Amino acid sequence: MKFVRFKIDKVEKKGILEKNRIRRIAGNFFTDYTALDEYYDLSEIQFLPPVKPSKIICVGRNYREHAMELNNPIPKRPLIFLKPPSAVIANENIIKLPDISNRVEYEGELAIVVGKKCSRIKPIDAVHYIFGYTCFNDITARDIQLDEKNFTTAKSFDTFAPIGPCIEDNITSEEDFNIKTLVNGKLKQDGNTRDMIFGIPLLMSFISSIMTLYPGDVIATGTPKGVGVLKKGDVVEVFIDKIGTLKNYVD
Amino acid sequence: MKFVRFKIDKVEKKGILEKNRIRRIAGNFFTDYTALDEYYDLSEIQFLPPVKPSKIICVGRNYREHAMELNNPIPKRPLIFLKPPSAVIANENIIKLPDISNRVEYEGELAIVVGKKCSRIKPIDAVHYIFGYTCFNDITARDIQLDEKNFTTAKSFDTFAPIGPCIEDNITSEEDFNIKTLVNGKLKQDGNTRDMIFGIPLLMSFISSIMTLYPGDVIATGTPKGVGVLKKGDVVEVFIDKIGTLKNYVD
Repeated sequence: MKFVRFKIDKVEKKGILEKNRIRRIAGNFFTDYTALDEYYDLSEIQFLPPVKPSKIICVGRNYREHAMELNNPIPKRPLIFLKPPSAVIANENIIKLPDISNRVEYEGELAIVVGKKCSRIKPIDAVHYIFGYTCFNDITARDIQLDEKNFTTAKSFDTFAPIGPCIEDNITSEEDFNIKTLVNGKLKQDGNTRDMIFGIPLLMSFISSIMTLYPGDVIATGTPKGVGVLKKGDVVEVFIDKIGTLKNYVD
Repeated sequence: MKFVRFKIDKVEKKGILEKNRIRRIAGNFFTDYTALDEYYDLSEIQFLPPVKPSKIICVGRNYREHAMELNNPIPKRPLIFLKPPSAVIANENIIKLPDISNRVEYEGELAIVVGKKCSRIKPIDAVHYIFGYTCFNDITARDIQLDEKNFTTAKSFDTFAPIGPCIEDNITSEEDFNIKTLVNGKLKQDGNTRDMIFGIPLLMSFISSIMTLYPGDVIATGTPKGVGVLKKGDVVEVFIDKIGTLKNYVD
């Protein structure tokens, strides 16, 4: 199922994406819901972020070739950082370039959406705590990141965490995902999650050994090689097989 | 007023701390509340964190002598990082030492509690968006921080964000605060916020220029010199004039 949150006539609703329409649901994705006999055409709704995470944990340098393209060493354990919930935007929302950066870059990523509260889980048990997967764009002010040698300011600006369009729950952590990022229709990143240094079960285990995870928390699993600059007027799309396309405008 | 959240008989309540008792209030600290004729003795309640922040922004190296004691350069703009809400614990709760660190340290700090949603505010306007102040202990696995040269893992463990006991709203951003940290009753840090490199109005302006702040968000303003190690069985207290003492046990 492709779970979405959306807005119509200023009212927030939840639903399931079915080709070109959304079927409304009542209840909670994570626990219990009922599909209603209420349908909306995609042209009449605005997407909302599919979750409201209490925290967003990102993994840096989790693809060897991406670590190399920025001249960074391969980490010996997952290198994590946080993005604030205030940075989250939805599919079709606008990424706003901040005045204090001259080099804002896209980073297309697969994101895990946590389904159940968990702490200190084993890699083999990770699958029981994952609700599903979505597309994520870890927007980064690269000039600030390189200058500070610290992630937070560079990655925390409002609009720097596009997520969506939906959460797909009908795939397993053993599957590979193709991740493609396109800017103005041109292919820029073309990776596969099989090339991650630390895979999904290990990331869930490592992160939950540090911090308790809650339903709706998001883990962005790192970006493949091919990161690059976004300019005003660009359209950036993160496409992942079986999930869909997260499309955002740059201003 | 000293605003608190607390628990009694498994029920969460809000109140105002008055010497050795709490007067219950109904409503919301940030908007509108009513003091009730209902009083509790401190011996019968458990403190809760005084706020549930959507994000916790910490400031690194904001005291010259602390930057120097760890051989770090003085930052040219505020160096910020995030702690996850899952790390928050209350006054009198236990800080749990993680297995993977051999050097967990205290960092006593003054924290700002945001009162109103704000973005891109000027330093001179900061005062209008501050609800009050509280004590914060930025617990840090120093060995991991030094090894990774990154803040997140080292500072994000569950229980690594003690906050409280109360939020004092009756003080202004122009006042100086003495900050003292004691371990097992011995004075370890003795600083004053007048020695901050970036003061409260500038921190509010800088951080809100990156990320929108919401009521209840917490900004921990950095630690003075004198950081040091915590061992199992220790009692650590952060004392700030006019606010009170945040006391935690180490296990």
